[in-house]
Amino acid sequence: MKPFLDEEFLLQTPTAQKLYHAFAEKLPIIDYHNHLPPDQVAGNINFKNITQVWLYGDHYKWRAMRTNGIKEDFITGGKSDYEKFKKWAETVPYTMRNPLYVWTHLELRRYFDIHDLLSIKTAQSIYDNATAKLQTPEFSVQGLLQKMNVETICTTDDPTDDLHFHQQLKNEGGTVKMLPAFRADKAMNPDDLEVLNAYIDQLESVTNTSIASYEAYLSALKSRHDYFAENGCSVSDHGLEQIYAEDYTEEEIKNIFEKIRAKNSISYSENLKFRSALLFQFAIWDHEKGWVQQYHLGALRNNNARMLKQLGPDTGWDSIGDFSQARQLSKFLNRLDAEDRLAKTIIYNLNPADNELIATMVGNYNDGSVAGKVQFGSAWWFLDQKDGMTKQINALSNMGLLSKFVGMLTDSRSFLSFPRHEYFRRLLCNLFGKDVENGELPNDLELIGKIISDICYHNAKNYFNF
Amino acid sequence: MKPFLDEEFLLQTPTAQKLYHAFAEKLPIIDYHNHLPPDQVAGNINFKNITQVWLYGDHYKWRAMRTNGIKEDFITGGKSDYEKFKKWAETVPYTMRNPLYVWTHLELRRYFDIHDLLSIKTAQSIYDNATAKLQTPEFSVQGLLQKMNVETICTTDDPTDDLHFHQQLKNEGGTVKMLPAFRADKAMNPDDLEVLNAYIDQLESVTNTSIASYEAYLSALKSRHDYFAENGCSVSDHGLEQIYAEDYTEEEIKNIFEKIRAKNSISYSENLKFRSALLFQFAIWDHEKGWVQQYHLGALRNNNARMLKQLGPDTGWDSIGDFSQARQLSKFLNRLDAEDRLAKTIIYNLNPADNELIATMVGNYNDGSVAGKVQFGSAWWFLDQKDGMTKQINALSNMGLLSKFVGMLTDSRSFLSFPRHEYFRRLLCNLFGKDVENGELPNDLELIGKIISDICYHNAKNYFNF
Amino acid sequence: MKPFLDEEFLLQTPTAQKLYHAFAEKLPIIDYHNHLPPDQVAGNINFKNITQVWLYGDHYKWRAMRTNGIKEDFITGGKSDYEKFKKWAETVPYTMRNPLYVWTHLELRRYFDIHDLLSIKTAQSIYDNATAKLQTPEFSVQGLLQKMNVETICTTDDPTDDLHFHQQLKNEGGTVKMLPAFRADKAMNPDDLEVLNAYIDQLESVTNTSIASYEAYLSALKSRHDYFAENGCSVSDHGLEQIYAEDYTEEEIKNIFEKIRAKNSISYSENLKFRSALLFQFAIWDHEKGWVQQYHLGALRNNNARMLKQLGPDTGWDSIGDFSQARQLSKFLNRLDAEDRLAKTIIYNLNPADNELIATMVGNYNDGSVAGKVQFGSAWWFLDQKDGMTKQINALSNMGLLSKFVGMLTDSRSFLSFPRHEYFRRLLCNLFGKDVENGELPNDLELIGKIISDICYHNAKNYFNF
Repeated sequence: MKPFLDEEFLLQTPTAQKLYHAFAEKLPIIDYHNHLPPDQVAGNINFKNITQVWLYGDHYKWRAMRTNGIKEDFITGGKSDYEKFKKWAETVPYTMRNPLYVWTHLELRRYFDIHDLLSIKTAQSIYDNATAKLQTPEFSVQGLLQKMNVETICTTDDPTDDLHFHQQLKNEGGTVKMLPAFRADKAMNPDDLEVLNAYIDQLESVTNTSIASYEAYLSALKSRHDYFAENGCSVSDHGLEQIYAEDYTEEEIKNIFEKIRAKNSISYSENLKFRSALLFQFAIWDHEKGWVQQYHLGALRNNNARMLKQLGPDTGWDSIGDFSQARQLSKFLNRLDAEDRLAKTIIYNLNPADNELIATMVGNYNDGSVAGKVQFGSAWWFLDQKDGMTKQINALSNMGLLSKFVGMLTDSRSFLSFPRHEYFRRLLCNLFGKDVENGELPNDLELIGKIISDICYHNAKNYFNF
Repeated sequence: MKPFLDEEFLLQTPTAQKLYHAFAEKLPIIDYHNHLPPDQVAGNINFKNITQVWLYGDHYKWRAMRTNGIKEDFITGGKSDYEKFKKWAETVPYTMRNPLYVWTHLELRRYFDIHDLLSIKTAQSIYDNATAKLQTPEFSVQGLLQKMNVETICTTDDPTDDLHFHQQLKNEGGTVKMLPAFRADKAMNPDDLEVLNAYIDQLESVTNTSIASYEAYLSALKSRHDYFAENGCSVSDHGLEQIYAEDYTEEEIKNIFEKIRAKNSISYSENLKFRSALLFQFAIWDHEKGWVQQYHLGALRNNNARMLKQLGPDTGWDSIGDFSQARQLSKFLNRLDAEDRLAKTIIYNLNPADNELIATMVGNYNDGSVAGKVQFGSAWWFLDQKDGMTKQINALSNMGLLSKFVGMLTDSRSFLSFPRHEYFRRLLCNLFGKDVENGELPNDLELIGKIISDICYHNAKNYFNF
Repeated sequence: MKPFLDEEFLLQTPTAQKLYHAFAEKLPIIDYHNHLPPDQVAGNINFKNITQVWLYGDHYKWRAMRTNGIKEDFITGGKSDYEKFKKWAETVPYTMRNPLYVWTHLELRRYFDIHDLLSIKTAQSIYDNATAKLQTPEFSVQGLLQKMNVETICTTDDPTDDLHFHQQLKNEGGTVKMLPAFRADKAMNPDDLEVLNAYIDQLESVTNTSIASYEAYLSALKSRHDYFAENGCSVSDHGLEQIYAEDYTEEEIKNIFEKIRAKNSISYSENLKFRSALLFQFAIWDHEKGWVQQYHLGALRNNNARMLKQLGPDTGWDSIGDFSQARQLSKFLNRLDAEDRLAKTIIYNLNPADNELIATMVGNYNDGSVAGKVQFGSAWWFLDQKDGMTKQINALSNMGLLSKFVGMLTDSRSFLSFPRHEYFRRLLCNLFGKDVENGELPNDLELIGKIISDICYHNAKNYFNF
């Protein structure tokens, strides 16, 4: 029996162990998509206690606590940080077989060198121990990243953002490189015309222009895209239920935009056309600048209106949808490809039932121009666990070239989530190791080691030109 | 090599074996949803022979026999019980790798202590042996349940049912507690207006009221819901392709009901609105009474019109559908939750492609009020086998709290199907055991044993308040 | 550690090894559906070099090369055969974990007795070695088939084909039996009326009739169906996104056909009705003649318009779709079954998310008339690899009778793809072997061996009446 979370965790064969320690373990981390707060990175803050760095903002843990029957007061409510931590500690043993159980203890070990299992019995000592460490310079935000050997991170930023935290960090220097990503979801969402108009007003203010026409809107957005590029951005990101690829004419979009600006309601069809036009436009700009564009597909968000009203979005009320993906994704990518304006592209998929669909779809636009040009992105969100990762890696292996994969990212809001790269690397080495031991791959560790280190680091480095 | 079906069947590690024998094996069974005939339980009948208890009504076996090229005469037709049994015996060896192969031999062993493999060679002796035992008091219906340590069963009953068999058993006492479940599928199905009107007429008669309006219809149904509650019912159940959650007004539903009652054909849209209104109404009553409501989603039924006409429904012509599930399920649960009228709920899913969707959807309504309030139900029907169970358990583990799961049920028409609880328990222990042996869980058998016994018995006991 | 691709490749237990060597290894191959060119078989040609037999026409390899960043010139373009081979050799190491890696080396070993791993270092010697062998009579097309113990192949032929290569081979004799299959996809595709009319014109010419009405069209197609039967055909095949099963009247179809013939555009609804009518008609003829009908469902084709224009269809720009399958498949099969005109049928599925749907759907039409009458076809195209095969076999096992399965086929354009039968057989034996070793099946190798040899050979032999 292997001890819990030991040196050879997830590495079930000698070959897997060799591969991991020789080719994966020590590589730096490129976390090319996450939701870390730029102000905290630039400010290099220290968190007051482990609750603030670990439980604040982590809707994975919140969902587990709620399912365990913990009241909201102890989760996002008014209870003290220690009371919240205790409730989390009480919940942890009941998360067994959920990735939270492993993440929790991996994070306690890797950041804090705490090897106790978290439970109500150990809550106080772990809280005190971790909180004390968090007061030291070694445990500042940049210290936490450095501890995990993080080289580059890409945050997720609205076009209206002035990126001054990115500039600040660049100017002041630091152990980590922080780049922005262009995420214009708000700009293309006409579901609530009040909200969209307020957004456009804000964009007017940021760009110091008047936005009364679709042309002016594009022009303002384009100027932000340029501004992001000037600030080191080379990736965009989109969070969508599915790709929008309706037919439309420029004339139609102009009229729809005028209706939007006049707050005259638009039809569902117009809503989709508007989204389709902007999504295509952003892709054109991404291609012009040689950026990498990312699409996160398949989430059905805000399923609990009562709690959404109480807590706002991204607080744990989202789930996996069953949207049709193939036709529209094909239509969108094909339209770009037909004009030779398809940028490097990563498709992330939230419903594992669509893994094979996505793994084969990306291959339709790999035309030899760039190795691994269109990528099937790493297992995401709910799928960011052993089963989900394994399925993504296997689908990609079977239907594409795993060797050209740009690998893992955290997509996380948490500074403590970086051991997931280690987890991914172990899993990857284990899969290769098992194949070698079973005689399904040759015992050529040099070649396989190269492929592994490519997936863990070098492919991303080359693909993103970091 | 392990012998077939030995003591440690499915328990592939020492840890799994320890967990099963110490924490799961001896627990009583709560079978909170099945289709057992209440008259046979209350009457405590003895079956005439093994064909009658084993093959009559078991459409799993029928499908296998048909696929094996056996004529209907030997399945549901006029051949003698022994001739039918012989054809089943002839088919059994060809069911290898189908769950029927294991169920068959598990059931022969656990009920009849017969350890031979069933085939044409052993047919006569097994038939004679089992049939002889079935004549004894120990093998009466209640005896069979007692043999499997069954504590509580919930049958599936139409609102018009008078529940007198449930009353009879309660009055006479017995080793098993039999509770009814409110299954109003017929009441909300307007596909055939003749059938629905006949049903409403029957409801008039049972409630001694006149049902000319939707209000009267609701009132009559509500009185039956109350009646079921008075008779110990605390669960409802619904068999649906997908959740119905169309928008409607009360006025619309009143008009639709009048059309239905007048046998004027209604549109497809009206059909869906009618279903949506009733489904919502039933959920409100379930919440008012603190019941558990169950939804079985995803079956496409009656695919073979020729055989349906010949044999009626539920005779083996159903399959798995590919319905959209996410949006409507979200809309339905959200509407109930928004009014704080969402009862404890179990969602069963028939298409494994939707496992992750369901596993994440239920989490959206777990708000801390009750541990495990909204549940992803156990693998169902075609999925009630090792692969299907494993996928359901893993999806639930990865995306929710397995520890709060209410566990297994048979959903069966057969008194011989209860070893499936044993099968589930072995599988569950094996999954935990493997994780422990692999170092993915700590070797804390006390804690893991508690979680296992919760899933196998205590969670259901608490959740259903039995 | 097992050596790569050794004698016991994929056979992870002693039981699996025994089963394979005793019951599967030596059986002849019936490849009942593929895309081999009849002229090359009848002509018994020798290929000029390994590039021509291995890389020409293999879009699996092309996709891998493109994803590896190889330019089209080296794939389908003007570079020399050896330059193309070198680029393939350069790509092979980067296909690890893709089935191409194993196919490649299995094919080099089984056909050419070449045991080196293919890479840029070994490219020259392997090219020379294989190319030299290809010049010898033993490596003619019929020699290659004989080497793999291929007994029967079914090609894929358009109704307008004169089948003279099939006749030629029959007349001249040969070690392999080559039968045609009736594939009328072009005849039922009205997407491009120019193309369809040209096709109908060609049919006029082949049948020496005038086709101005739908009756005449059916009559001409029927005469070709008869002609195929006279030439030994007993299988049809259809490549469809999903089954077409719209309601229509004969009158509607007659009008639609007139529009088509007049090149007046038809609506999408008319398009589907036309397809539905023909698909049903073909099925009727298949039943009349006692043929086996095959449906390949779920591919989304021609996703890259730019490359389609450049290279034509079937050049590597297809992927897996997410079409709705259940209702229409049920409606189509039910309509045929209701009239007792359902032929033996095989349903192939490209999206593994639908495996369980298909595995249960076929069971609805297995009525005992023929063992395994309606089949869930072998893992197809992108799924033709270890994971995909395993999922298909397991879904079929769990939801049907694996023992009645007609087994593997290549569906390939390549004379070198026949080791996939070996791969399938090893995998199948491994699955049975593991179940036996785990105590989930009894250790009755005679019975299990019979089931395995049935699946590998005898079931197909009986089912197709070859």
